[in-house]
Amino acid sequence: MNSILIRNGVVVAMDPARTITHGDVYIEDGVIQEFPSKRQKADEVIDAADKLVLPGFVQTHIHLNQTLFRGLSEDLVVEDWLRLRIWPLEQAHDAESLYDAARLGIAEMIRGGTTCALTNETVQHTDSAFEAIIESGFRAVAGKMMMDRWEVGTEMLGETTDDSMRESMRLLEKYHGRENGRVSYAFCPRGTRNITDELWRDVVQAADEHGILIHCHCGDGKAQTVRLSQESLTEFRYLESVGAPGPNLVLAHCIWLDDEELGMMAESDTKATHCPSANLKVASGLAKVPEMLELGVNVSLGADGAPANNNLDMFMEMRLAGLIHKPRLDDERTMPASTVLEMATIGGARALGMDDKIGSIEAGKLADVIVVERGGLHNQPMDESDPMTQVVYQLRSSDVDTVIVDGNILLRDGEFVNLDVNELRSSVASSVKRVMKRANLADL
Amino acid sequence: MNSILIRNGVVVAMDPARTITHGDVYIEDGVIQEFPSKRQKADEVIDAADKLVLPGFVQTHIHLNQTLFRGLSEDLVVEDWLRLRIWPLEQAHDAESLYDAARLGIAEMIRGGTTCALTNETVQHTDSAFEAIIESGFRAVAGKMMMDRWEVGTEMLGETTDDSMRESMRLLEKYHGRENGRVSYAFCPRGTRNITDELWRDVVQAADEHGILIHCHCGDGKAQTVRLSQESLTEFRYLESVGAPGPNLVLAHCIWLDDEELGMMAESDTKATHCPSANLKVASGLAKVPEMLELGVNVSLGADGAPANNNLDMFMEMRLAGLIHKPRLDDERTMPASTVLEMATIGGARALGMDDKIGSIEAGKLADVIVVERGGLHNQPMDESDPMTQVVYQLRSSDVDTVIVDGNILLRDGEFVNLDVNELRSSVASSVKRVMKRANLADL
Repeated sequence: MNSILIRNGVVVAMDPARTITHGDVYIEDGVIQEFPSKRQKADEVIDAADKLVLPGFVQTHIHLNQTLFRGLSEDLVVEDWLRLRIWPLEQAHDAESLYDAARLGIAEMIRGGTTCALTNETVQHTDSAFEAIIESGFRAVAGKMMMDRWEVGTEMLGETTDDSMRESMRLLEKYHGRENGRVSYAFCPRGTRNITDELWRDVVQAADEHGILIHCHCGDGKAQTVRLSQESLTEFRYLESVGAPGPNLVLAHCIWLDDEELGMMAESDTKATHCPSANLKVASGLAKVPEMLELGVNVSLGADGAPANNNLDMFMEMRLAGLIHKPRLDDERTMPASTVLEMATIGGARALGMDDKIGSIEAGKLADVIVVERGGLHNQPMDESDPMTQVVYQLRSSDVDTVIVDGNILLRDGEFVNLDVNELRSSVASSVKRVMKRANLADL
Repeated sequence: MNSILIRNGVVVAMDPARTITHGDVYIEDGVIQEFPSKRQKADEVIDAADKLVLPGFVQTHIHLNQTLFRGLSEDLVVEDWLRLRIWPLEQAHDAESLYDAARLGIAEMIRGGTTCALTNETVQHTDSAFEAIIESGFRAVAGKMMMDRWEVGTEMLGETTDDSMRESMRLLEKYHGRENGRVSYAFCPRGTRNITDELWRDVVQAADEHGILIHCHCGDGKAQTVRLSQESLTEFRYLESVGAPGPNLVLAHCIWLDDEELGMMAESDTKATHCPSANLKVASGLAKVPEMLELGVNVSLGADGAPANNNLDMFMEMRLAGLIHKPRLDDERTMPASTVLEMATIGGARALGMDDKIGSIEAGKLADVIVVERGGLHNQPMDESDPMTQVVYQLRSSDVDTVIVDGNILLRDGEFVNLDVNELRSSVASSVKRVMKRANLADL
C-alpha cells in the first residue's frame, strides 16, 4: 500500500458541485479515497499551504512526435508548413528521434500540470511513442497516424490501406490497456482528405468492436472545406457518410463546420477539441466554441503539435480560450474562467470517455492531481480573487509544484522525480540534427 | 566607475542591422561601451552561456495603480467593469495602497524582463507611484490621470479643470528628469470623453512647452465611437481639433479608428500602443496592427492594467500580438516574430522619444539589458530555431535570469537584488483589503 496526503491546499475539485474549499486530499494505491480528509498520516505528506490543488489537465489533441520540430516551421502559409516542413520532418524520424520527441513532449506537459493527453503520432515508429509514455508515468491515449490517401506533393508520407490497418491493429493489441489502463490506443486517421472510404469504414468498425476512440482532424482548413464543397460535400457530412460520428469520435479544431454540422455533432455526441494557439498560428480561424458549448457539444482543449504553437502548455491554451471568443461575440462574459477550466479538466476526461476515472478530485477517482504555487508576483494579491480566474488568467506552467499521475509523484517542488533533464536536452539536440539532415533541412 | 561584462550569450541586439550573434557586452557607468567586446575583466561578470541577451522590454501602456485590483473585475461588460470596479477602486486608493500597487506592478515587470514603462496613474496619490519608481531602479514615464469631464454614474472619479492642470504641473516639476533622467513625466488625459476642450488645449500647449509626452486612451470602445458619430465626430478627428496629434502623442488601443484616421496618425507621427490581452479580455476588438505598421505608424506594446489582462507580462503580449492578427488577415506570415520583437523593444523606445537612449544593444546606449535562460523544456531543441521566434513564442517571464536598468543589476539569477518579495506580498495583501472595504467591495 502506498498513500499520499495533500494537506492544507485550496482544492478546486471540479466535481459536479464545483467545490472550491480548503481541505486535504487522501490517496491510497493510486485512488483518491477521501476529500476532504481528516487523516493525519500517510507514506508521503505534501504541504499545499497557500497553494491550489486541482485535477491534472487533460489535453485532447497532441502530436508528441512533432515536439522535436518546435520553432522549425515559422511564418509559412499552411500548405508550405505541411509540405516543406512537417511531412518531410515526420518522414525523416527514426525510432530514437521519435522516442526523444515523445519524451520531450511528455516532460513539457508534466512540468506544466498536464497529466493525460490524446496524441496522434506519425505513420511510423509509433512503438517509440508508447515506450516513452510507459516509462514516463504519464497517462495517454495514443495512436499511429493513418494516411492511405494523399495528394500530389505529399507522397513522402503515406502508406497502403492494408498496411495502415494492419499496423494499427498490431499496436492496439500490444498497447491498449497497458500499465493497468494508464495507456490506451486510439485510431488516428489524419483527416477526411487523408483516408480512403474503405479505410474509414474499417476504422469505424474496428473502433466499435474494440470499444476505442477515433481521433481525427476536421474543419481545420478553409482549403479543404472549399475542395469538398465542389463535390457538394462538407467534412462532417462526409464523416457521417462513413458512419464515424458518435461518442467515441474526437475531432480536432472544428473551425470550418457550418451550424447544421455543429448540430449534428451535438446530436451524435461527437467530441470537439479546441486548439486556440495553433488555430491562430497557422491562420485557420476561430472555432465557434461558445456556440458549440451552447448546443451541448463537449469541447476540450489541446495544444496540437509544437511547430504550430510553439508550446504544449495548458495554461497558454486556457488563457487564449478565455480571451479570443470575447471580441468575436462582442461579449466580455462569454467563456468565463469556470467554463475554460471545465474544458481543461473534466471536459477532457469526457472526450476520452474517462470521466468516471479522471478529470476531477472525487473519492474513487484515479489520483491524477496537481499542486500549483500561487505566491508569484504575477498572482498577487492572491486571497481576494477567484481561484479559477487565477488558474485561467494569472498562473503559468512554471507555477506547477507537484504532479501526481495514477498515484505516482512525477514532479515534486517543480523538479522531476525520475527524469534526467540534462540527458533529455542533449539527446533531443542530437536527434533533431539527425532528422533535419535526413529531411534535407540541415541548413534551415 | 562601475563595470559589467555579460559574456558568451547569444545577443539579439535589435540594432539597425538586427544583429544576432554570439558575443560579449561591456557596460561602464550605466552605458553600453562596446558590443561585441573583447574585454576580459569587469567589476561584475555575468555568464550568459546558453542564454539570450536582449535589450529590456519597453511597455507603453500600463496602469501601475491597478495592479492591486488583479482578478477583481472578471466577467463584466466593460461599462460595469469601469463603473462597478475600476473607478470605485481607484477612488478608494490611499497613498500607501497606491505605493504598494506600483511596487507590485514594477516588480512583476522587472521579473519578466520589462525595464521601462509608460504608465498612467489615477487622479490622486501620484507621488506614491513616483516614489515606487524612484526606489525600484525601474525606468518609467509616468503621469497623473486627468479627468475633468465625466458621465452620469462615474462621478466618483473626477476633478476640476484647474485642479487637474495644477496637480499635473506640480508633479511634472517635481519628478520630470529625476534620477539622472531615469524618471520622466507625461500628461495623461484619460481619454477623449474624460477631458474638456479647455483642458485638452492647456495640455497640448504645456506638453509642447516642456517637450514631454501626452498619453491617452483612444479608440478602445465601440460605444464611444458610436456616441461621437452622433455628433459627426470621431476620436482621432476630435484630437486633431484640439491640436493633440504629433510625435509626442501616444495613443493606447487604437481599435475603433477608421482607415483615414490611421492615415492621419501616420502623417502626424502619432504613436500607437497595442494591448492585445486587454483588448480581448474586455471585448474591445482587434486593432489593425499590421495595417498601421504598413502605413508607417509606430506601434509598440503594453499590458494595460492588471484587471484587464491579468498580467503585466511582455512575453504574453508578444505572443498574442504575433497570433491574433493572422486569422483576421488570413495570412500566416503577417506579424513575424522579428516585427513583434521590434514592437517590444526599439518600437517602445521610439514611442517614448527615447530610441537614441534605449531599445537596443549598441555602444553609447543606456544599459537596459536582460539575460534570458533558454534551457527550459518548453524551448527545446534550442539550437536550430530562430532566437526571435524563441522569445516571441516559446520563452516566458520565468525564464528571465538577469535584468539591468541604467547599469544597475535589479534581478540576478531570477532573484531580486534589492526587493523583499515577502514584505511586498504581505503589504499588498493588507492594502487591497483596506481599499476593497473603502470601496464597499469587501464581500466581492
